[in-house]
Amino acid sequence: MAEGLVVLGLDPGSRVTGYGFVRELSGRAELVATGTIRTPVKKDMATRMGVLFDSLQELIREHCPAEAAIENVFVAKNPSSALKLGQARGACMAACATNKIPMGEYEPSKIKKNLVGLGNAPKSQVAFMVAHCLGIKKPDWPEDASDALAVAICHLNERRMRRLTGA
Amino acid sequence: MAEGLVVLGLDPGSRVTGYGFVRELSGRAELVATGTIRTPVKKDMATRMGVLFDSLQELIREHCPAEAAIENVFVAKNPSSALKLGQARGACMAACATNKIPMGEYEPSKIKKNLVGLGNAPKSQVAFMVAHCLGIKKPDWPEDASDALAVAICHLNERRMRRLTGA
Repeated sequence: MAEGLVVLGLDPGSRVTGYGFVRELSGRAELVATGTIRTPVKKDMATRMGVLFDSLQELIREHCPAEAAIENVFVAKNPSSALKLGQARGACMAACATNKIPMGEYEPSKIKKNLVGLGNAPKSQVAFMVAHCLGIKKPDWPEDASDALAVAICHLNERRMRRLTGA
Repeated sequence: MAEGLVVLGLDPGSRVTGYGFVRELSGRAELVATGTIRTPVKKDMATRMGVLFDSLQELIREHCPAEAAIENVFVAKNPSSALKLGQARGACMAACATNKIPMGEYEPSKIKKNLVGLGNAPKSQVAFMVAHCLGIKKPDWPEDASDALAVAICHLNERRMRRLTGA
């Protein structure tokens, strides 16, 4: 049953991780919850990844998503930032997988094309479409949350498409 | 009480993660358990990180380490391998932190200097000293496990040193 299905979109970062829970209701996307998880920057990385994992796990238990989605990363500025980003992704993946939530990965261009129709659409247009899809006139969430909602909406659209085409 | 304290050393990798549980008994290091966790290479990365997290959590519950230690990574070959390594590190960090196990990070040169006396000691010498410290004449563990045991022994030594010097 897809009706009422909740999807968790994630935009991981070692400092700030955006999350967005979106419900599919009668073929439309409905906002359940969105926000950011901040890790204590003055603590060591293991402690920070623990905070990220525990916070995400708490949110998962509260909103019970059936599936999750994350942006696929192919390039990073440098090995050091890639390592940090990887650690945050690993903590997020672990939180979803240990709660038996399958995770879809989408390329950034795929997400943009899915929401706006253009693979190279500017961030502002994606943010506009996120709010539009959710029927929110004046979105008050930060950029990381908006990016996470974009992945969640993309996942719901792709999912519906696959179901309709029987793929 | 430090007597009987168990430390978990980790050498994370997206394909293979080495682990080593070492107990400090009467000032000597004693092997508790060592081995590797392999992730299913044909599955998606989130599933693999879930396997790593769940396997590690099971081992943690079995051997109840009080502290953990991991090698600090400053450089990686390229952003792509750094991202993969980071994901495995993040899953390991999450498993330790969510079980309230503090984690120490040590630079590779620090580990080599601690065990062999030389910051640029070859891997074979470190492996020899790992077996020697644990009183094992014919070690039968793989390289990743040996590397994990090295971090655990380094952590125990550093810990004892700090205690003796009151640092």
